[in-house]
Amino acid sequence: MTYSVLEIAKALDAEAFGNTDLIVERVSEPASAGPNDLALLTNPKFADGLAQGQARVALLWPGADWQSLGLEAAIIATRGRFAMSGLTTMMDPGQHFADGVHPTALIDETAQLGASVSVGPYAIIGPRAQIGANSVIGPFCHIGADSVLGEGAYLRDHVSIGARVTIGARFRAQPGARIGADGMSFVTPEESGVEKARESLGDQGEVTSQNWARIHSLGAVAVGDDVEMGANACIDYGTIRDTRIGNGTKIDNLVHIAHNVTVGNDCLFAAQVGIAGSTTIGDNVVFGGQVGVTDNTTVGSNVIAGGASKILNKVPAGQVVLGYPAVKMDLNLDMYKSLRRLPRLIKQVAELQKSVSKDGSSG
Amino acid sequence: MTYSVLEIAKALDAEAFGNTDLIVERVSEPASAGPNDLALLTNPKFADGLAQGQARVALLWPGADWQSLGLEAAIIATRGRFAMSGLTTMMDPGQHFADGVHPTALIDETAQLGASVSVGPYAIIGPRAQIGANSVIGPFCHIGADSVLGEGAYLRDHVSIGARVTIGARFRAQPGARIGADGMSFVTPEESGVEKARESLGDQGEVTSQNWARIHSLGAVAVGDDVEMGANACIDYGTIRDTRIGNGTKIDNLVHIAHNVTVGNDCLFAAQVGIAGSTTIGDNVVFGGQVGVTDNTTVGSNVIAGGASKILNKVPAGQVVLGYPAVKMDLNLDMYKSLRRLPRLIKQVAELQKSVSKDGSSG
Amino acid sequence: MTYSVLEIAKALDAEAFGNTDLIVERVSEPASAGPNDLALLTNPKFADGLAQGQARVALLWPGADWQSLGLEAAIIATRGRFAMSGLTTMMDPGQHFADGVHPTALIDETAQLGASVSVGPYAIIGPRAQIGANSVIGPFCHIGADSVLGEGAYLRDHVSIGARVTIGARFRAQPGARIGADGMSFVTPEESGVEKARESLGDQGEVTSQNWARIHSLGAVAVGDDVEMGANACIDYGTIRDTRIGNGTKIDNLVHIAHNVTVGNDCLFAAQVGIAGSTTIGDNVVFGGQVGVTDNTTVGSNVIAGGASKILNKVPAGQVVLGYPAVKMDLNLDMYKSLRRLPRLIKQVAELQKSVSKDGSSG
Repeated sequence: MTYSVLEIAKALDAEAFGNTDLIVERVSEPASAGPNDLALLTNPKFADGLAQGQARVALLWPGADWQSLGLEAAIIATRGRFAMSGLTTMMDPGQHFADGVHPTALIDETAQLGASVSVGPYAIIGPRAQIGANSVIGPFCHIGADSVLGEGAYLRDHVSIGARVTIGARFRAQPGARIGADGMSFVTPEESGVEKARESLGDQGEVTSQNWARIHSLGAVAVGDDVEMGANACIDYGTIRDTRIGNGTKIDNLVHIAHNVTVGNDCLFAAQVGIAGSTTIGDNVVFGGQVGVTDNTTVGSNVIAGGASKILNKVPAGQVVLGYPAVKMDLNLDMYKSLRRLPRLIKQVAELQKSVSKDGSSG
Repeated sequence: MTYSVLEIAKALDAEAFGNTDLIVERVSEPASAGPNDLALLTNPKFADGLAQGQARVALLWPGADWQSLGLEAAIIATRGRFAMSGLTTMMDPGQHFADGVHPTALIDETAQLGASVSVGPYAIIGPRAQIGANSVIGPFCHIGADSVLGEGAYLRDHVSIGARVTIGARFRAQPGARIGADGMSFVTPEESGVEKARESLGDQGEVTSQNWARIHSLGAVAVGDDVEMGANACIDYGTIRDTRIGNGTKIDNLVHIAHNVTVGNDCLFAAQVGIAGSTTIGDNVVFGGQVGVTDNTTVGSNVIAGGASKILNKVPAGQVVLGYPAVKMDLNLDMYKSLRRLPRLIKQVAELQKSVSKDGSSG
Repeated sequence: MTYSVLEIAKALDAEAFGNTDLIVERVSEPASAGPNDLALLTNPKFADGLAQGQARVALLWPGADWQSLGLEAAIIATRGRFAMSGLTTMMDPGQHFADGVHPTALIDETAQLGASVSVGPYAIIGPRAQIGANSVIGPFCHIGADSVLGEGAYLRDHVSIGARVTIGARFRAQPGARIGADGMSFVTPEESGVEKARESLGDQGEVTSQNWARIHSLGAVAVGDDVEMGANACIDYGTIRDTRIGNGTKIDNLVHIAHNVTVGNDCLFAAQVGIAGSTTIGDNVVFGGQVGVTDNTTVGSNVIAGGASKILNKVPAGQVVLGYPAVKMDLNLDMYKSLRRLPRLIKQVAELQKSVSKDGSSG
């Protein structure tokens, strides 16, 4: 798809300047832009790049003097980073999945497909599954029995939706995402070493080896509207109640969400985050990559956890945390600064001991 | 499936009280239970929930007064958490995979299937593979050449079993589990910076860039009986000998087990655990989520490692460890408490220095 | 395949001794070697194992006295570990994928396949995709539109290559590897708490809940020659420019590489490594398992990061780092040693305070 500068500016609710009939074929970084590309230049710091490329039009920061930058045209958005959303939506080249239902797709006769649903080659849709209108089910997807997908779903290839999973509108899943794996829940006939160690904070008492008996997952997964799920990310069934993901929550690659977890609305979990069983996460929570949260705890709304934080205890709403164990970010930084001074401190104390004991001997 | 209260109690080896002919359709939490649901109430703390739901029968804690809770019937188990295993096994609604071999399944003519094996649509079973009786091979599974699966295997969709992998009875795998990926093993023509840094604890000497030559995996993976594997979890081939997983070990989503690792019996690895190459794990070891274990080390039997612990050295049998690096849990907690006091300690030492130097100057 | 001792020695550029016509069927560890196996014994420490097995020939360390070890033949390589590469390449039993294009493979009529390409059952190759000569595309692989794979690619089963991805020669991918998932990039209409917290190092100011708007991925992924990718590993598209992986880089299972990341040549990333968006990694960088790198930072060439290191800041070339936050390894070890002494130090300071205050009172 190509667009004129004017069309793009209108779609972004931004201002257009100069030759607004210029046709744009692609979006590029300034230094590598060709003559038909829109250069992205929302930060004046990178303005020098423009001279290295051939762009005639750019998306610029508010107040930029586009003419002195040697451009023929410009688009100026109040918040350039936000304009990126509209712009990239327009220009997304997509996966070129074919429309319609591929002849190799296996759709159970009891499944219900809404209007204009595409189903790719070698996709499977199970008994009584319901797929909302305008959805795209990619190649090799498996949609389990009795599951429900809202309208406008977009599933890349190799996605698994387990039986009984329900998902709202506009769900997006990247390759290999799995919703509805069995929860990891096992129990021993007698109290186990883990149960004892938890109670005693570290002492598991006398150990007797026992087999693990499986607790099956009777609950499902209930996912809200506008949720996204990254490549090879996993969400487990609940044990009795459903595992729940709120509206607008975005989950990156290789994230794990365990059984019985409840996640609120508009959360953002970066890659490789892991949330253990039965934990509750509020709304608008942001986790950096590799964050871990222990089981059976609570993370309040608007919490931000820096990359690789390991949350071992309840976090109140609004806190910004970091570290292992995760604590308030300023406390974490204080402790860390102190730790860096510790080797020196040990020497200072040794000297103090010497001088005090001298004082003592001289006393 | 529906069951009477009496049938359930018998199956759980538990006691039934009241109207034991009541029919149960589902298992629910007390507050959301419908009139045909069995409420799970094994902890008196949650008894209030019963009034919010409509349950007429509940699974209760030992000694509970079921009549005063307003129930028509009750099941009482000595260890309610353990009873959950039997109960959820009975009530599991499953995936509704069809019986028999689907016409689109590709089964090599030299493969051997035991009695009553189901093979889902678009599943592939390679040359000379052997599948034990009563196994279920889900859609899009790939069972490699010369591999062996014991009886009663249950594979969800998109599972990969590499060539030459051998697995015991009653194996379960969630979507996207991979057994038999090649081990990550590369070598440089001359000693590499990593080898030097390991020897010197941090000094890699003069660095010369080298290409990595591949060491292929000639070993396979040998898995015992009653093993489970979570969604998108991975186990690599051994280099020369097999990577080994003992009987009864349960592996959660997104776990990585590297080449040449030996895992004992009845271990439990929570999600995103990673075990590096050639490490040996004993029996009955429990790892919380995101635990990491370095290569070429040993973790003794009955070790418990708290969530996100990073094991960089040998751990003796029976220890409960935590932290990065993982140390005995009480030592970890001691160090952490001290660290929290450290900023204050630094001030105290500064004051001491002042008062001692005053003493000195006044001496 | 079987080989004579002489053939193997020649292929490894090593010396052969004794009965060099002996035929070798397999490679084994000394203790479990059968009479037709080549025992691997490159470290004299394990020489005792030979007596427990039945090997008649072994790969030995330089200077080994093969006759006194009771062998009929021997191969001696200068660097045994490096010889393992050639040896295992020769002896790899492989996956037994059939040659040719399977009749169930769906190859778009506009796709171009080089000479001698094998395509497995239920594999899909999309519009305008190009597959280099002598490549093997495994079962259930999905090769997206307009993607390019160089010659000699070897893809196990269930691999996803997204649209527009370009890959050099001799690429290898394990089951479930994904290249070309959408980048995790979202933006709020107004400045978000995360943006504020980053600027203020922990204070996100007043929180107003906002929806996340999607930034689509217009860039692709560009992968060099001789790259490997482990099971269920993921590489995301770039936002505007391509995500880039240099030549010779090896990526293990469950690794995550985010949008816009640039990785140099000959890097080695062990399992579960995660690299956040827009970060640049130099050449010959080695990351242990579970290493994390924050977004928008730089890791210089020849850096080595120990297992589970979390890199939160720029790392200069050649450094060996460890810890969370990752710092130079010797500093990390110093801090850790000091931390272990800290509980004692607190007591020492308390005693000092007492003795100084006594001195003071006696002054």
